[in-house]
Amino acid sequence: MTVRFFGSAASALFRPNSTTMSPTKVTIVGSGNWGSAIARIVGQTTKAYSNEFDPTVRMWVFEEMVNGEKLSEIINTRHENVKYLPGKILPENIVAVPDLVQSCDGSEILIFVVPHQFVKGICKQLEGKISPNAHVVSLIKGVSVQENGTGLKLISDEIREYLKCPVDVLMGANLAPEVANDMFCEATIGCQTRSVHGPMLKRLFHTDNFRISVVEDAHTVELCGALKNVVACAAGFTDGLGYGDNTKAAVIRLGLMEITKFVEHYYPGSNLSTFFESCGIADLITTCYGGRNRKVCEAFVKAGKPMAEVEKELLNGQSAQGPPTAAEVFHMLEATNLISSFPLFVAVHRICQGEMPPSGMIDCLRDHPEHQA
Amino acid sequence: MTVRFFGSAASALFRPNSTTMSPTKVTIVGSGNWGSAIARIVGQTTKAYSNEFDPTVRMWVFEEMVNGEKLSEIINTRHENVKYLPGKILPENIVAVPDLVQSCDGSEILIFVVPHQFVKGICKQLEGKISPNAHVVSLIKGVSVQENGTGLKLISDEIREYLKCPVDVLMGANLAPEVANDMFCEATIGCQTRSVHGPMLKRLFHTDNFRISVVEDAHTVELCGALKNVVACAAGFTDGLGYGDNTKAAVIRLGLMEITKFVEHYYPGSNLSTFFESCGIADLITTCYGGRNRKVCEAFVKAGKPMAEVEKELLNGQSAQGPPTAAEVFHMLEATNLISSFPLFVAVHRICQGEMPPSGMIDCLRDHPEHQA
Repeated sequence: MTVRFFGSAASALFRPNSTTMSPTKVTIVGSGNWGSAIARIVGQTTKAYSNEFDPTVRMWVFEEMVNGEKLSEIINTRHENVKYLPGKILPENIVAVPDLVQSCDGSEILIFVVPHQFVKGICKQLEGKISPNAHVVSLIKGVSVQENGTGLKLISDEIREYLKCPVDVLMGANLAPEVANDMFCEATIGCQTRSVHGPMLKRLFHTDNFRISVVEDAHTVELCGALKNVVACAAGFTDGLGYGDNTKAAVIRLGLMEITKFVEHYYPGSNLSTFFESCGIADLITTCYGGRNRKVCEAFVKAGKPMAEVEKELLNGQSAQGPPTAAEVFHMLEATNLISSFPLFVAVHRICQGEMPPSGMIDCLRDHPEHQA
Repeated sequence: MTVRFFGSAASALFRPNSTTMSPTKVTIVGSGNWGSAIARIVGQTTKAYSNEFDPTVRMWVFEEMVNGEKLSEIINTRHENVKYLPGKILPENIVAVPDLVQSCDGSEILIFVVPHQFVKGICKQLEGKISPNAHVVSLIKGVSVQENGTGLKLISDEIREYLKCPVDVLMGANLAPEVANDMFCEATIGCQTRSVHGPMLKRLFHTDNFRISVVEDAHTVELCGALKNVVACAAGFTDGLGYGDNTKAAVIRLGLMEITKFVEHYYPGSNLSTFFESCGIADLITTCYGGRNRKVCEAFVKAGKPMAEVEKELLNGQSAQGPPTAAEVFHMLEATNLISSFPLFVAVHRICQGEMPPSGMIDCLRDHPEHQA
């Protein structure tokens, strides 16, 4: 056993450290609703595995004033993120740090959990300043855009290009308020093929009520997390049109078929079984019933106003990920002459753009290639 | 083309009849809520393909008096099943026939759509009296029990044993009231391998708002329709315990994993892709959100009364399929030493029997073998 234990640098990475090695430092980059919910989990696990992880977990907090006090100071004294997760106590080993570079200094695990539009800025600040052994776990659902404007780009690829380090992802059916309330749920960690980080990351996130499966299929896991938002828009449209559970189930199923086909075509090498994980079918269901994209798109149909206006009214300045993701997906389909194979994705884009009435959604489903069989 | 058209008896079966062949007669055996909703579809399609199907479709009606009138006469004069699908007009080519044998006489397609406990009695009456070319399409979701009491038996196998004819099945995410309201949905026809009936059956059921896919995997299609009720019980329990969308998504996903594993183990030869059809994941979702098993099991947790009592209060004399299906599944798992591989199925059975508190459901999910990865 001892031989295996210290057999290689790789195996040391995912086994409890002996007294001769210092425990792995962990930083949470982000402190919104989801970041704070995750801090409650990581605070627990790093204490439980304190020989493997440094139980002092730094959390980067974008500093802001809350009723005349600094948010980071409130978190460090009252152990509560009063702004983004009020009413929930954070473990005392979570330490808020307002300086980004300082919060990540010497950390080997950087948990990225910020809105996707902040990724670039954060990476630029961290470039060249993180530990040479650092790797990132991205919890960011969404996509970026290729610089030449020709389609979507994975957030993990964006991070990897800037920080030149391995990037794994964690996705799943994880509405943040329920996770914060310790409701039982599952999540999927997607590692790069032959990654040595899987077992260590499982220990970092796996708790009694947050159950992790690890798959070596990071791209698929991340793409599921982005593309489900397009399907949720379709579900919102049919909800807005007054259709029921049968129709929504058809939307979810046909959406899953298009997600699968899209991933297989543009990111070959995915495993079909990954779509059966929490990041796949489970997150898709949750999002099509409970998520913000569904809600905005239902309201869009009922209100008959432009999407931007509905978002402004409902999301308090934030934006829904579905419409821009649908736009990038559409560009890719158009550039590769695959429009007719993805009628649901295409319809979502056209409806969001005002180029098609919402009722057109049903016509697109009706003639879906899946019904050829 | 002509050569192919009349090339064999088999191909004639699924191509439009020429004037030299008489159109295929269709009978609907059953006239409840679902049978009447299906009659609206089959009435349409047989008229549209009147060279292939006899547009006079007989519907067997279990005769009963409704406000002093015979139900069959009401249907034949007012074209409405006032008892089981009030407010919806049936096509005029649907003819109610109260005599079972007479309703099926000379029909080549018998659509079985009755509660599963009536199947045996109906088959006994029809034994030896149906057309030698007849085949059955079963729309019955549920299971029967092996005569030696050792586990579940497919309804289609039961019908086949009595009537000695081919039996295909139709299942999907099809809550009957929504189908009756022409809401868009999908369904799956499961044919026996190398069945010649698939294309013909697709024409018989496929309409603008009821979209059919055909797969040659009848057992899997039917098993999905039965086993989803067990998963819906689990969803009802977690709903009753106050859990949210994340937990329900985990229940649906883990339930799907157990359905898949169960089918692969006990009915080898299934196709993984069948679980992605409407009969699989879509029907499972609909049932876990909208079905009666979910409802009864939620109420069971909240009321703290025995299951039989809750069913009596909520289902107006009918029974939920989930608990007895779970019992038969449990017997099979016990007899084959596979209890530990199906913790969700087992927990549903034990909770229904009062052998385990509903909160035990979450403990079973927590230690699910799916989380070993």
